[in-house]
Amino acid sequence: MPENIFLTGFMGSGKSTVGALLARAMGRKFVDMDSELTRHFGQPIAEVFAQRGEAAFRQAESALLARLSRRRGLVAATGGGVAANPANRALMRADGGRIVWLRAGLEHCARRLGPLETAARPLWRDAAAVERLFAQRQEAYADCDHAVDTEGLLPQQAAAAVLAAITPQRVFDAGLEGKRCPVTATFQAPAKLAELCAGRRVIVLSESRVAGLHLARLCAGLQPAAQVILPPGEATKTLAGARRVYDALLAANVERGDLLVAIGGGMITDLGAFVAATYKRGMDFILVSTSLLGCVDASVGGKAAVNLPAAKNIVGLFTAPLAVVLDLWALSTLPRAQRAEGLAEAYKTGLIGRPELFDLVDQRLEALLAGDLGGLAACAHLAAETKARVVSADFREKGPRRVLNLGHTYGHAVESWHNYKISHGRAVAVGMIVAARLSLERGLLAADLAQRVIDVCARLRGRPVALPPVEQAWPIMQNDKKNAGGKVVFVLLEGVGRPLVVDDLTPDELARALAALEAV
Amino acid sequence: MPENIFLTGFMGSGKSTVGALLARAMGRKFVDMDSELTRHFGQPIAEVFAQRGEAAFRQAESALLARLSRRRGLVAATGGGVAANPANRALMRADGGRIVWLRAGLEHCARRLGPLETAARPLWRDAAAVERLFAQRQEAYADCDHAVDTEGLLPQQAAAAVLAAITPQRVFDAGLEGKRCPVTATFQAPAKLAELCAGRRVIVLSESRVAGLHLARLCAGLQPAAQVILPPGEATKTLAGARRVYDALLAANVERGDLLVAIGGGMITDLGAFVAATYKRGMDFILVSTSLLGCVDASVGGKAAVNLPAAKNIVGLFTAPLAVVLDLWALSTLPRAQRAEGLAEAYKTGLIGRPELFDLVDQRLEALLAGDLGGLAACAHLAAETKARVVSADFREKGPRRVLNLGHTYGHAVESWHNYKISHGRAVAVGMIVAARLSLERGLLAADLAQRVIDVCARLRGRPVALPPVEQAWPIMQNDKKNAGGKVVFVLLEGVGRPLVVDDLTPDELARALAALEAV
Repeated sequence: MPENIFLTGFMGSGKSTVGALLARAMGRKFVDMDSELTRHFGQPIAEVFAQRGEAAFRQAESALLARLSRRRGLVAATGGGVAANPANRALMRADGGRIVWLRAGLEHCARRLGPLETAARPLWRDAAAVERLFAQRQEAYADCDHAVDTEGLLPQQAAAAVLAAITPQRVFDAGLEGKRCPVTATFQAPAKLAELCAGRRVIVLSESRVAGLHLARLCAGLQPAAQVILPPGEATKTLAGARRVYDALLAANVERGDLLVAIGGGMITDLGAFVAATYKRGMDFILVSTSLLGCVDASVGGKAAVNLPAAKNIVGLFTAPLAVVLDLWALSTLPRAQRAEGLAEAYKTGLIGRPELFDLVDQRLEALLAGDLGGLAACAHLAAETKARVVSADFREKGPRRVLNLGHTYGHAVESWHNYKISHGRAVAVGMIVAARLSLERGLLAADLAQRVIDVCARLRGRPVALPPVEQAWPIMQNDKKNAGGKVVFVLLEGVGRPLVVDDLTPDELARALAALEAV
Repeated sequence: MPENIFLTGFMGSGKSTVGALLARAMGRKFVDMDSELTRHFGQPIAEVFAQRGEAAFRQAESALLARLSRRRGLVAATGGGVAANPANRALMRADGGRIVWLRAGLEHCARRLGPLETAARPLWRDAAAVERLFAQRQEAYADCDHAVDTEGLLPQQAAAAVLAAITPQRVFDAGLEGKRCPVTATFQAPAKLAELCAGRRVIVLSESRVAGLHLARLCAGLQPAAQVILPPGEATKTLAGARRVYDALLAANVERGDLLVAIGGGMITDLGAFVAATYKRGMDFILVSTSLLGCVDASVGGKAAVNLPAAKNIVGLFTAPLAVVLDLWALSTLPRAQRAEGLAEAYKTGLIGRPELFDLVDQRLEALLAGDLGGLAACAHLAAETKARVVSADFREKGPRRVLNLGHTYGHAVESWHNYKISHGRAVAVGMIVAARLSLERGLLAADLAQRVIDVCARLRGRPVALPPVEQAWPIMQNDKKNAGGKVVFVLLEGVGRPLVVDDLTPDELARALAALEAV
């Protein structure tokens, strides 16, 4: 989504504030045209009007717009009069650029500007003139690509509404053992959630970090009967953590027919699914994923789990949520390391079964790492949809689902050997590097593609990670819960979208691949 | 099964030892004919032969047999020569009596008697004569109702083999959400278990009390890769108890494809099912029920659960075992209180859906309480089969399955109000008394039947139990995990096999019924 986005609307509709938030959320450059022109003229716009005349100003404005329209990936707040000129609208639309009208009534605009500013702007002193101008411009504003109603919204909500408008909501099904589980990737998660929970008694489960960032927004349309907020971090995802939730549910007299809404990353969705599946022998639950890793992996797949000190995710079951919501707005609040983690899993999913997703990560890696929200949203949607397809075909992981383990077999050894000081995403990136090298050594994968995979994964991994030697990695790999009969099942690659599951890997072969990688 | 059972076979085949064990297990009277005759003649049999001649002895023997054949419910060990006479065989078969031949080779018999005894019996001094006699008698022994090979068996095993022979193994299916789960009620649990586990890596879970009584017998045909033995008692059925099992499974490198065999009462089968359903996202498991309560209730129904301090069975799920084995032999080792507990649940099942089972408990209550193993086995089989039928129709307890809650709604309040110092079975007996009284008050149940139900339940309950008053019982009943919307769902009776589920019970109505019961 590298097309420019131009925000239009009347004075006070919030173009500058919303635009700045939107650009930050999308990891894009923000341009405020009025600020640019003030700098250009070296004086406030009212003075330019008074001293040089409106025509001079409009000419400079159109020239600036022409320059901006030749650039890519901008978010620009236009001046209130820009859209009035049809030639300007054509400029904004050049190369797929989009016009987004922040639609609001005159009173809302006046309130937003405040008495100080309306007093300072000559136009606002004449109420009739303002009303006339407002009425005149409506038709020009209406010639837009998206009209977004911002009345009554906080600036952050308005920015999310713009994203929702330019990013269509995607709904697809994960078929989990015959049960339909609709997954919705949306910038309008609060509305979606309210719709899904209508008429049910709702209990919200989250962790404090996510709750601080997202709970007020997501729960705006709910009246939860109780909220259970746990400490953040993997240490909470244990039987003791589950126990805290059970106790809270009992204290709130939660019944089997009530609905648990788990809001957070993989830790909360895994734990929430486990508790919901085992409280009073199973209650309905909805997972709202707020992390990229959660969106592309944890929340789609019908797995519920908690950790034991001896092994991660060792206690759990397969269970289908009532629905999954991928909260795309929340992706704007992730730190870079968490973006990289999620991208590693998304890249893996692209590699095993979605060339379009592979290309997206391959070609826009830096922008994605920098926080391009449109791109991250596309990654979340494509990866979740692809995973849902694979999982629907093989819910209980008897066969085809195994390809999702690309990078995970050696990756788990990396995590375990480093005592889980290395994040899952980084470990999977390392695992994919090893898988690519093994595929190359076996003559399965072309050298240039293998190198591309290794380069992208090295970028996703970040600073180098010590590789566990084969004699220590092998027993960990044998013990993976997905393996049987002491064999190591390994996913290799024959190309993009062409994974190959093998069980004849030898420790020697792995040792050679590790040595080759360390020699680089 | 009140028909007499006559054990036949050659000297030393174990008739007296096995007969005594069998009678004790079945709660029957035991008669050892040779001992009776020794007492009758006032001298050892060898002396009777020598001084009065064999004919006099055989006459007395037949006369004794005629007297025995007019009695009922005996286990009798016959003398080695009894069966040789066709008239004796006819006497033994009078009124459905059964002849069970303990078949063994001559060497086995000699070894069992031992050198001291063979030296003392004149016949055994002449090897050729013994062989001749042994050969002669085979044909007469073979005219029996059941031939049981006892060679190589310990006396207890031989007694179980006799029970297995006279009690056909029953197999029926519990359909748990589309999955077939075969339930086998059998006195040959070890053989059945070995058959079910063939070719699988097996881990055995049990508790120390049950393990001491039954593990060697049940595991004779298995080579378990590991055994996990927990402390007995409900205190083990917690998340911490589950944690101990998870850790033991991890330590034994148990894989998803291995098979967990849980051997014990409801505590172990509930916990074992919970662990198996959640270890590495689910492994196969077999439940072997060794208690009557477990046979008639816990092991059939696809429920897995552990307790929290705040509520029993509150954490769990619906899950289907690979198979269930009802170990009928183990019912011979239960203390009376546990027999009464299981009978209370069996009676309930008879009341809601199996008139034949209702009649069995109603008519043979004292014998069952005293340990009539044949009767207990029939109760176990009939109750489990009936429950399986109800559960198959409604696995997730949305509708028809609720009738199984007869006696449980107020029963749970009794347990909870007494802080679980009252056993489940006694509490259910109390609950059924209350349900019968309520049914009577509503004019649903005939007065004589209501009184019979109350009388039987009072016997099953044992010494009186204080009734929780309605203002304290009501909130507990509202909180039952099977209820919804704060309503109390209650099962009443219109007759045997005619349960009625209502949700319009009022606290006043319950108070009146409790007052009426306390006034008695």
